[in-house]
Amino acid sequence: MRTIEEHRAAVEARIAQWCGALPKGALYAPMDYLLHLPAKRVRPVATLMACELFGGDPDAALDAALGIELFHNFTLMHDDIMDASPIRRGQPTVHVRWGANMAILSGDAMLVKAYQCMGADARALAAFNSCALQVCEGQELDMAFEKASSVTAEQYMGMIRRKTAVLLAGALEIGSIKAGSSEQQQRMIGRFGEQLGLAFQLRDDHIDAFGDPGVTGKQRGGDLRAGKKTWLLIRGLELERAHGGGALTTALGQLSIARDVGAMVEALIALGVREESDALIRATEQEAMDALDSVAVADERKAPLRKLAMGLMGRKS
Amino acid sequence: MRTIEEHRAAVEARIAQWCGALPKGALYAPMDYLLHLPAKRVRPVATLMACELFGGDPDAALDAALGIELFHNFTLMHDDIMDASPIRRGQPTVHVRWGANMAILSGDAMLVKAYQCMGADARALAAFNSCALQVCEGQELDMAFEKASSVTAEQYMGMIRRKTAVLLAGALEIGSIKAGSSEQQQRMIGRFGEQLGLAFQLRDDHIDAFGDPGVTGKQRGGDLRAGKKTWLLIRGLELERAHGGGALTTALGQLSIARDVGAMVEALIALGVREESDALIRATEQEAMDALDSVAVADERKAPLRKLAMGLMGRKS
Repeated sequence: MRTIEEHRAAVEARIAQWCGALPKGALYAPMDYLLHLPAKRVRPVATLMACELFGGDPDAALDAALGIELFHNFTLMHDDIMDASPIRRGQPTVHVRWGANMAILSGDAMLVKAYQCMGADARALAAFNSCALQVCEGQELDMAFEKASSVTAEQYMGMIRRKTAVLLAGALEIGSIKAGSSEQQQRMIGRFGEQLGLAFQLRDDHIDAFGDPGVTGKQRGGDLRAGKKTWLLIRGLELERAHGGGALTTALGQLSIARDVGAMVEALIALGVREESDALIRATEQEAMDALDSVAVADERKAPLRKLAMGLMGRKS
Repeated sequence: MRTIEEHRAAVEARIAQWCGALPKGALYAPMDYLLHLPAKRVRPVATLMACELFGGDPDAALDAALGIELFHNFTLMHDDIMDASPIRRGQPTVHVRWGANMAILSGDAMLVKAYQCMGADARALAAFNSCALQVCEGQELDMAFEKASSVTAEQYMGMIRRKTAVLLAGALEIGSIKAGSSEQQQRMIGRFGEQLGLAFQLRDDHIDAFGDPGVTGKQRGGDLRAGKKTWLLIRGLELERAHGGGALTTALGQLSIARDVGAMVEALIALGVREESDALIRATEQEAMDALDSVAVADERKAPLRKLAMGLMGRKS
């Protein structure tokens, strides 16, 4: 079995080779640029690991893994336009550097390139198509939620499931398909990826509000200041509505610059949202690990995926 | 053999069925809207005809034909954003009606849907991928030409080949693949589509400048007024540069509202560009018909495609 680092090196080498073979010109330069920003390559690594888990040769899944990473970067390119994000990983986004039109067009071509890498395996394509559509649906919900006056915690979970979790699930499923896994085993490893992806996103939201800025390297409460409807804020507002008014409701009525993030964090803690969020994350992580446990493969083969999961959960072991 | 009208009816019925099965919601509504604008469905009809030409059951190519039409409409949705076009076929474009973000996202999902229809036939996918990338390259060239100070007639032909002709070629090739044609026959029918597509675009440009407004229903010289770098204007400017100055060069230096379109048309005629364009269109049409003649299939089977070609060439017989 290969280590995470070995899988990652294989992905990086394939990406470098692929970028090197791109035609010159403005249509392809943004792909090369985006793929060269620092990235953990979690999804393509997951594809290779799932292939190896089920006894396949990970090299046989390398192009599919590349297809997953190209798809992920296509979504970044287009999402950055829609979200009007100027910066990604410390660098100007594609639409800032090349203009929105080129970011649209280069993203389109990158999606085609992702399909080119995915090949003509009917099962892999079916999983990929389903996954790609759900990611679009997730982005649509995310944009709709920004304008919506009220969003429920359940709706939020449905959104991040599609926008984030489904792609990790798809990456793992496609890896398992490349190893010839049964459909039942495919669903099981997909379930592991879905729950792991959900837990990762929930934890990301959690850390923004309650993390130690000395550890995260980010200013605390950026999401809260922006009034971003994360699980925490949605749940906090639900509880305040039930009890009538409160600090979060008041803060959301203010301009973002006037929001007292510290008071919002304290309000979330007082409402019990921190504990609730913590419990939800742990339960979701447990769902993920249970799914991995249920995969019908010798336990020692699961070690690399367990390690990947622990990394995503922010744990050492 | 089915008639054009029968093929078109089959395409319309499949599109109606497909639209009827779309999920509700803002992501899918623009697809339904765009597919309901009046359209000739030339590309999907060509797919069905090419399948039947090579002895295949056109019904077996119906989903691939739908995939081609979905892809075409995806390009319309995104091109309309990039070109900032407010109107398509007399109706507001998708980005005007739903906003640019939704037009980006719905277009992305429509491209995924196109792949879903295309299935997992390796040869069809390879043709489709190659075609899709070239269409993106064509749009990139089209946008680049708008800003370019000088474009050659050869560059223009390369642009319309990718942006317009390649998709008609791909539609025919994929139909032939669904009938199990040889690669040589696939190339031949593709060549027919490519030359026919080129001739169609050149004729479209030609009619804008020299057509009878009473027949075309459009104001004459819209492209000339806009300073659009069509083959006619590019060739006319080339000739004026060779001879030093001239009416076209002068007109392009003016604001579009001040341009004397009548004088521009007369200048093109005086330079011999009308005759040259006419000869080029006829030669390109001849290339198309020669390619169809070379297809190794009994001549009477080619009658429907000949009729489709005559229609695109604006001829009765």
